Amino acid sequence: MSRHFVAELGELKSTIIRMGSMAEQAIAESIRALLERDPELARRVIDEDESINRYEVIVDDQVVDLLALQQPVAVDLRFILAAQKINNDLERIGDHAVNIAESALQYSGRPPLTRPGEIPEMAGISKTMLREAIDAFIHSNTALAREVLRTDDEIDNLNRRTVEGMAELIRTDTQIIYQALDLIRVSRNLERVADLATNIAEEVIFMAEAHNVKHNVERREPQQGPT
Amino acid sequence: MSRHFVAELGELKSTIIRMGSMAEQAIAESIRALLERDPELARRVIDEDESINRYEVIVDDQVVDLLALQQPVAVDLRFILAAQKINNDLERIGDHAVNIAESALQYSGRPPLTRPGEIPEMAGISKTMLREAIDAFIHSNTALAREVLRTDDEIDNLNRRTVEGMAELIRTDTQIIYQALDLIRVSRNLERVADLATNIAEEVIFMAEAHNVKHNVERREPQQGPT
Repeated sequence: MSRHFVAELGELKSTIIRMGSMAEQAIAESIRALLERDPELARRVIDEDESINRYEVIVDDQVVDLLALQQPVAVDLRFILAAQKINNDLERIGDHAVNIAESALQYSGRPPLTRPGEIPEMAGISKTMLREAIDAFIHSNTALAREVLRTDDEIDNLNRRTVEGMAELIRTDTQIIYQALDLIRVSRNLERVADLATNIAEEVIFMAEAHNVKHNVERREPQQGPT
Repeated sequence: MSRHFVAELGELKSTIIRMGSMAEQAIAESIRALLERDPELARRVIDEDESINRYEVIVDDQVVDLLALQQPVAVDLRFILAAQKINNDLERIGDHAVNIAESALQYSGRPPLTRPGEIPEMAGISKTMLREAIDAFIHSNTALAREVLRTDDEIDNLNRRTVEGMAELIRTDTQIIYQALDLIRVSRNLERVADLATNIAEEVIFMAEAHNVKHNVERREPQQGPT
């Protein structure tokens, strides 16, 4: 393997790590903009999505170059394919941060709800999932990646509770319809962020073990003892 | 280029076309289940998502094999990379059909709304976008792909109108909160289907022209004449 190829793989990895930090920050800031009712911060998140989008195009180009010029096989090929997919996942996470920031902008112009449902808890869990998925990628840590897969159900439950809680709030006070719809939208976006963190974790396992764990193949294995 | 390689590329293309039909059908049936209040059909859509998921894993494997064994370059490489991304997009469209079918199941157990907002119109447009994106892929038709890119704004506007219309409905009658939330969820899922059809169209252009049109690069070009 040429030194040039090793350097290029390292560069691809660095770009993904940089994108990962940007996506993490975008989600954290969009939630802060919502909870602290900070429209300035919300606008900044929306503006900064351009940078994540630019990185996506850079990674796409790096992937095409690496595949065309180096014709990698085995673990290097799997790394490059995983990087391409993670790239796509991170760009989508950036889009969800924009959606949350847009909801934060609207929400900050309305009288706030006394309780924002399970949003703070969901935000905490999905940020942790994203951080761990990226750490798993950086260190090829499949144990950590599997930890992320296990957390996804929690987020689905919290999302369901948020939607039900908001529906109850609207029932008792129709004045807060729009605020409640804002928070339902944020809740669904956080659920999608958690899904995408799960995708990243699946890619890390594929990359490290040449083993596809999509669609719960592992998690659905019957828990039978010998019969 | 070996005959074997040509055959394998053809097989990859057929698998994607087959997945595309399944995703189209899943979206069409989930919407029919919603509008015709048919829980049986909704359950069938949810069950059949397994098949789309199985195809996703098959395509992932085909892509790895083609890249590792054939080490393609230029147009073949771009075709394979586009196929991998379209594969991912189609699998996500299948997930949105499941979400819509879940909402259809809930909605069919509640008194219906007299008007389902802009849902039928959105469903029609997003189905057309998906059909055209897949046709563009089949025939490498970039003119058709660009047509899909232009339609995406319409869906965003219809989604906004649906959310506003449903909020107004809730304000006048809190009895219909859950039905209105079902339809808002369907509307957002259709918006995402249109986004994913747009992604597919972008991949077709990348594949045919080696030219990245993500993030509105083309659509944002200033419309200036010579000065």
